[in-house]
Amino acid sequence: MPQESDGGRPRRRSAASPSKSAGKGDQTKRTRRLRLIPLGGVGEVGKNCLLLEQGTDMVLIDVGVKFPEEELLGIDLIIPDLSYVAEHVEQLRAIVITHGHEDHLGALPFVLRQLNSAYPVPVYGSRLVLGMARAKLEEHRALALCDLQEIDFGTKVHLGSIRIEFFPVGHSIPDASGLIIESAFGTIVHTSDFKFGEMPQSGLDRLHAVAQHGVQLLLSDTVRIESAEPTRSEAEVAKTIHDIMAAADGRVILTTFASNLARVNSVMQAAHQLGRHVAVAGRSLDRNLGIAREEGYIKVPDDLLVSLDRAEKLPANQVVLLTTGSQGEPSSALGRMAVGEHRLLRIRQGDTIILSSSPIPGNEQTVSSTIDNLFRAGALVHYSPITPALHASGHASRREIGQMMDLIKPAYAVPMHGEYRMMVLFRQLAAEHGIPADHVLLPEIGRAIDVTQDGARLGGTVASGSVLVDGLTVGAVDHVVLRDRRALASDGIMVISAAMDRASGRLVRTPEILARGFLPAEDGQFLDEAVERIERSLRRGQPGELEYRIVGERMKESLAGFVYQRTRLRPMILPVIMEV
Amino acid sequence: MPQESDGGRPRRRSAASPSKSAGKGDQTKRTRRLRLIPLGGVGEVGKNCLLLEQGTDMVLIDVGVKFPEEELLGIDLIIPDLSYVAEHVEQLRAIVITHGHEDHLGALPFVLRQLNSAYPVPVYGSRLVLGMARAKLEEHRALALCDLQEIDFGTKVHLGSIRIEFFPVGHSIPDASGLIIESAFGTIVHTSDFKFGEMPQSGLDRLHAVAQHGVQLLLSDTVRIESAEPTRSEAEVAKTIHDIMAAADGRVILTTFASNLARVNSVMQAAHQLGRHVAVAGRSLDRNLGIAREEGYIKVPDDLLVSLDRAEKLPANQVVLLTTGSQGEPSSALGRMAVGEHRLLRIRQGDTIILSSSPIPGNEQTVSSTIDNLFRAGALVHYSPITPALHASGHASRREIGQMMDLIKPAYAVPMHGEYRMMVLFRQLAAEHGIPADHVLLPEIGRAIDVTQDGARLGGTVASGSVLVDGLTVGAVDHVVLRDRRALASDGIMVISAAMDRASGRLVRTPEILARGFLPAEDGQFLDEAVERIERSLRRGQPGELEYRIVGERMKESLAGFVYQRTRLRPMILPVIMEV
Repeated sequence: MPQESDGGRPRRRSAASPSKSAGKGDQTKRTRRLRLIPLGGVGEVGKNCLLLEQGTDMVLIDVGVKFPEEELLGIDLIIPDLSYVAEHVEQLRAIVITHGHEDHLGALPFVLRQLNSAYPVPVYGSRLVLGMARAKLEEHRALALCDLQEIDFGTKVHLGSIRIEFFPVGHSIPDASGLIIESAFGTIVHTSDFKFGEMPQSGLDRLHAVAQHGVQLLLSDTVRIESAEPTRSEAEVAKTIHDIMAAADGRVILTTFASNLARVNSVMQAAHQLGRHVAVAGRSLDRNLGIAREEGYIKVPDDLLVSLDRAEKLPANQVVLLTTGSQGEPSSALGRMAVGEHRLLRIRQGDTIILSSSPIPGNEQTVSSTIDNLFRAGALVHYSPITPALHASGHASRREIGQMMDLIKPAYAVPMHGEYRMMVLFRQLAAEHGIPADHVLLPEIGRAIDVTQDGARLGGTVASGSVLVDGLTVGAVDHVVLRDRRALASDGIMVISAAMDRASGRLVRTPEILARGFLPAEDGQFLDEAVERIERSLRRGQPGELEYRIVGERMKESLAGFVYQRTRLRPMILPVIMEV
Repeated sequence: MPQESDGGRPRRRSAASPSKSAGKGDQTKRTRRLRLIPLGGVGEVGKNCLLLEQGTDMVLIDVGVKFPEEELLGIDLIIPDLSYVAEHVEQLRAIVITHGHEDHLGALPFVLRQLNSAYPVPVYGSRLVLGMARAKLEEHRALALCDLQEIDFGTKVHLGSIRIEFFPVGHSIPDASGLIIESAFGTIVHTSDFKFGEMPQSGLDRLHAVAQHGVQLLLSDTVRIESAEPTRSEAEVAKTIHDIMAAADGRVILTTFASNLARVNSVMQAAHQLGRHVAVAGRSLDRNLGIAREEGYIKVPDDLLVSLDRAEKLPANQVVLLTTGSQGEPSSALGRMAVGEHRLLRIRQGDTIILSSSPIPGNEQTVSSTIDNLFRAGALVHYSPITPALHASGHASRREIGQMMDLIKPAYAVPMHGEYRMMVLFRQLAAEHGIPADHVLLPEIGRAIDVTQDGARLGGTVASGSVLVDGLTVGAVDHVVLRDRRALASDGIMVISAAMDRASGRLVRTPEILARGFLPAEDGQFLDEAVERIERSLRRGQPGELEYRIVGERMKESLAGFVYQRTRLRPMILPVIMEV
């Protein structure tokens, strides 16, 4: 039987001042439905964020980041646009985090700043989630903006009129939760990220019990629906790692996702059993391991862990290096080792390297080239698919998603955490499991799913979108900046400068051209011809008639024409004209 | 029994003027060995190019292009650096092309210009190869630089002292060849790209016969060695396509590699059998199909093919659109259709789309997002792995490479056409097939493999590398240009301009800042503060003491410092100072 606990922020203020935009009719309508509004994580992979709205109560589930695709040049992170929530921040009862991965938790400090709440926002999560949240918030000096509230599985929190219970799911990080959301319009099960094979029994039991009473809506992880094979178990991967480690004569260097604390634990246990010491290379791994140990999720004897310096002095067959760099990132510990640029560590003949991970789409080439470099440096590299069972996904395969549908037997289902094609496949799969196609709603970012007495359907939209984080700036980069970066990246830039006499409208001296990222920049003859062409184009105007702007435009056009004709390239051209 | 034919360019000139660099001792050494010098295509995938050198005879096998990775911003193509061959161009007897794919043929026009030969260079290839070469050379106005010579399988050409015989191999384009190279130091078999399952019997018979007499060295395709599964046959793919087409009620839109003429043929035959007409969308497909029909490799009734306009008027169930865009390229026909930007074609509800291809590493995201867009537009999309057997690779899997080793039983083996890790796997595989590890040579670009009476070993190096093609420029882009493009892509650029009085060394007016691809460019307050900071920094110098260069440096430093402190970004900063 779940415990009950009263949670959420003080409701006084919101009761006194209901949302300005909600008139009386609206108010009635609003109390007659529960709205689920995805603000990220649907039709995309990353920045998971779901808003629950019932009456004047809002709850945010997960505030994740997304890592930018190549075309978002220079961008560090993408976070959900929460301006809709910020407008009604007095109605926000809590932020609930399902597990400690970046795509569920990573935007927390940015979001807290965006929301600009007068009170610290209550943030609910399991112990490990809060440990990771705390570290992140401290790093961003945002800890004071929220009020961290630890939740146990089975506890039900009342967040205004919304009741949420956490249940344990199997995933690639300990302490991962799904949510049972109780509303006036029925029960909603939100799996968040899960794999079926490793669901804790207590989670399965709880879901079974909930299903007995009828579930109105299932929100399900769908990211691995394209995969027919059942998701491999962590135990199988642990055995592979153990066996490779046992067979290795020299050092073992293993890389995995820094957030995959299940894997990190498997590595620790194998090393311990085989009498090897573990040294950790890479800041994110080091931090996550520290938190997991502190919170009691990874238990190893203190002397198992050694410093990198100490590891360099131990016999090779007593060493495991656990490193970042599973995506071949050039700046990661393994990436630097691969090219001989790590300050301390060198790859040696006889090293056994294990890539216990899979490339995130878009990273295939970087990973391959790191493997090549490691082989070149003389190591034996185990990677997928050459060595099987090196990695297990944290997500349910097609079959497991079907198993979840069968367990929950929801009236309606919504695919979450997946690209559009995956959501279409989810709808096909649902039909095979007795959920008719018109009871499967394909969600869109910013578009509400209205749950009422009559069922669930797609509703209206709210302000939504992506906010780009670049350095310290949040939301300052827009499509114009990106378009310019793409142009600069492709063909470089030329700056033509000229000084013009204000009175006569004549150039005071020969224009000069500077070029960067454009090729024949060093080619004196090319530049001389370009300047000549520019001067000729200016001579077409009557003296005195030329103006600042016209001169700039004319210089730009004639240079662009000359350059394109000679090279078929279109560098950006910036005219700089000074009136003196 | 192979026919004999005398080939190659006139030798008179080269006999009269042997290479300047070859002294008498060198000369003797050179005639005592055959050198195989990879100039591309080893330790990488793309720009295949192998130089044979025996005495004063040189033969180039394949001159391919490589498509640039993301980090080579703006670059169109990469071609091998052939400066070593250009230096000895009077010794070049011929260029031999094994098949019509871009990574074997694509650099031909560039290479012919680089070589700058006094005579047209003989280019040998099968009929289809020459058809594709001719089209490419005409497009680049380079047809006169070579002398195209058609070769039949089984014919042996004498290229100086080097004899080469073409034999047919199975690949994803008709008329693909492997080469049997006869030298004074034994026979060399060069598979070029092949798959074993579809080797023509005549090719197998010829290899069997050659193997009977002993093969000194095997050069083998190795690009698919990471795959354990046997390579699927084209016939199986043809059946899948036929079945999907037969079941479709509406239009069928199929995309594949424009160079995969085997697949194009399968599509034509299926459409013909099912009473559908085919319209082709995309220039490269259209051109390749034209050549293949002209040369007699694809035989279809004339009325099978219709224009796009005509296809738009036919009943949907009588139409197949064959389009470019198998890699999700936004500018391709399918890419434009997916986002509703094709000038003529729109995706309609009820369209069945087939991606008969696999993403080239690096293109996964673009392909996925195209699939998403096609689903969004209401089409049913068949793609791998959701629909199996949609594509067959043209390359041998691990097992097939082993079969080739068993057939040829070479004394030595060299992996070609693969990344470094694949070459290491090739060495492991060779050991399983009776070729000892020290008889497997891992080739490097620019490093000779010396074949002598005593066997084969790695030898000396020659000038080699990559030449970047950007627009019309060949080789003008260097690492400085690329470094600048990366910097511009990441954080944009700021230009500070100032005018300085020549006599007093004082600024004539307030400096101005222009920014592109840098974010708070529109932020007036930010720019005002930046200018203030710059002016303050200049005031530190004594009036009159400041010089052109110092002013520039100081402006740059103070702006960079200000920008980094505020944003943690490092835009490129270009000071433009005019002395007036």
